[in-house]
Amino acid sequence: MTTSTPALDLHADVADLTAALIDIESVSGNEAALADAVESALRELGHLQVLRDGDALLARTNLGRAERVILAGHLDTVPLPAVPGSRGTVPSSWQDGLLYGRGATDMKGGVAVQLALAASLAAPTRDVTYVFYDHEEVQASLSGLGRLVRNQPELLQGDFAILLEPTDGTVEGGCNGTIRLEARTVGKAAHSARAWMGQNAIHAAAEILVRLRDHEPATVTVDGLDYRESLNAVKIHGGTAGNVIPDHAVVEINYRFAPDKTPDDAEAYVRRLLDGFAVVRTDAAAGARPGLDHPAAADFVRAVGQEPKPKYGWTDVARFSELGIPAVNFGPGDALLAHTDNEHVSAEAIRACLAALRTWLG
Amino acid sequence: MTTSTPALDLHADVADLTAALIDIESVSGNEAALADAVESALRELGHLQVLRDGDALLARTNLGRAERVILAGHLDTVPLPAVPGSRGTVPSSWQDGLLYGRGATDMKGGVAVQLALAASLAAPTRDVTYVFYDHEEVQASLSGLGRLVRNQPELLQGDFAILLEPTDGTVEGGCNGTIRLEARTVGKAAHSARAWMGQNAIHAAAEILVRLRDHEPATVTVDGLDYRESLNAVKIHGGTAGNVIPDHAVVEINYRFAPDKTPDDAEAYVRRLLDGFAVVRTDAAAGARPGLDHPAAADFVRAVGQEPKPKYGWTDVARFSELGIPAVNFGPGDALLAHTDNEHVSAEAIRACLAALRTWLG
Repeated sequence: MTTSTPALDLHADVADLTAALIDIESVSGNEAALADAVESALRELGHLQVLRDGDALLARTNLGRAERVILAGHLDTVPLPAVPGSRGTVPSSWQDGLLYGRGATDMKGGVAVQLALAASLAAPTRDVTYVFYDHEEVQASLSGLGRLVRNQPELLQGDFAILLEPTDGTVEGGCNGTIRLEARTVGKAAHSARAWMGQNAIHAAAEILVRLRDHEPATVTVDGLDYRESLNAVKIHGGTAGNVIPDHAVVEINYRFAPDKTPDDAEAYVRRLLDGFAVVRTDAAAGARPGLDHPAAADFVRAVGQEPKPKYGWTDVARFSELGIPAVNFGPGDALLAHTDNEHVSAEAIRACLAALRTWLG
Repeated sequence: MTTSTPALDLHADVADLTAALIDIESVSGNEAALADAVESALRELGHLQVLRDGDALLARTNLGRAERVILAGHLDTVPLPAVPGSRGTVPSSWQDGLLYGRGATDMKGGVAVQLALAASLAAPTRDVTYVFYDHEEVQASLSGLGRLVRNQPELLQGDFAILLEPTDGTVEGGCNGTIRLEARTVGKAAHSARAWMGQNAIHAAAEILVRLRDHEPATVTVDGLDYRESLNAVKIHGGTAGNVIPDHAVVEINYRFAPDKTPDDAEAYVRRLLDGFAVVRTDAAAGARPGLDHPAAADFVRAVGQEPKPKYGWTDVARFSELGIPAVNFGPGDALLAHTDNEHVSAEAIRACLAALRTWLG
């Protein structure tokens, strides 16, 4: 820890604390300064067991409560906006009760709520494990949460987890899974002036695109929540030169599938749809069932007092799901503003999220 | 001209002369050494007016004959084969009467025939302009023949032109034109977990590929020769990332059209086929009618004694056609071997081509 670490005041207004967190730039891979500041502030509290692993931090109460809940959030952000004049950048700025800055929505508002709870709840009704981690916005293999699961599995146990990703203050349960596949066609190269000597692999891919275009994605009800699926070609490339009949084409497909399916189920589904074509799986991540039938989850949903919704995007709740821990998303801000050039969050949303969690845990 | 220029013996057997030409590597852009050697050999002949322009050469008889014919060939080749063990490389090699090497087919056999005629026909029955040029195998704007047309138009006049591109010893008349177009679709980006917020531009391109796939290319009879057309997607790309609904897709199309059409006709044809889609022309070159009704051409076809065929690929005959000079392709070797890793030509084919031209001009 360096002497230049800015001090964070965890007892300040939680919206001001969010601004202070934004002002410490922490694009993925550059989380150290923010992790230093968070570590320093947590260690001053005295009532928490604090552990650092790389640029991730665990802070735990050890009160011997009947239940333990996990409140988790990532410290990193996507890169700063490239468009000059964007307000979703560093440092933050205020206008009309809205806080603009990179990470305002995704997810320094949520991290501020975690820190404010850590500072103000010395004796919560449930034991709490606060998790702050690095490298969420980049490839899964770098994930700080994944590293913690590998390095400190015993310290990540719990009965229920809340990920403070932006949900506009409602509980979003579970998440869809995601699988990427490539459908490939093979042809025979020939000079394009004598096309009849070859076989056109791009023309052969027409049928793949037709089936994807005509496919009607399903909505699947899981544990009472309706998960809307998406199945799309996300990239395509093919051909080698402007005067050659193309001998290959590749359609990259992303299927976001409801958590009633495993990745293997999802792969089989796409293979059936594209029967007759070569299909290769390139990447997959299981979804997570909402788990809202768990008593701690049900109690939390009651405390929030709003109808829970399904989460469509894949989030780290799936990592908790793999550990057998029911998990939901609940945080301030609109997920549709995440990663945008004018990312922002309202002070009221951050305060309301803090109030809901404090009521539930207080 | 450097002192290290290898000497060419234009009176040697024309197949051996071909091997000597192959052994002076002349991938497009690197024609200087070969141009030096050809220039040196031509200047020694004495009965020709020789002019150099960059790495192109013009050599003319000035006998005051009633007709002037042009014999043209390019000095450059495509790059050497990348696959180890390929025989279509430099230096050349012989096996069973076949000469292997880069340019064997395309088109150092033809250039050797030009040089052998230049050396042996001091008094042809028609005046002859021999043209040797650079940069045929790269983008049209670099063409040495195009440069000669711009710099020396008066020296390129003639009644009839023969391009010694490989035609397996038959006369191939005219050539198809070629046009490149891009068909584009535009969508709306969205996170692929919420596909219903976007519009998929790759799915929108399905219909373009279906129409191209289902299109039946025509065969068009022009001046008695049947020109078979080709219309193909040659490249495709679209999409930006694995988790984003693609907002753009581009299909690159190449239409090889019969010489009854102008490039504008060809563009209109593709626009009608892809009605409803945005189509942009990126490149075009007119074809050339065979011109076999011209007396000099008819006389040449009789001398060769074989049924003439259409040329499908675009060749520089179209440049002569633009100058108002009827032109045909006639040269040794199989065009399907051009640019291949084991490019080769038979000694007999080169000698037969030379014999036919010597009979016609002798």
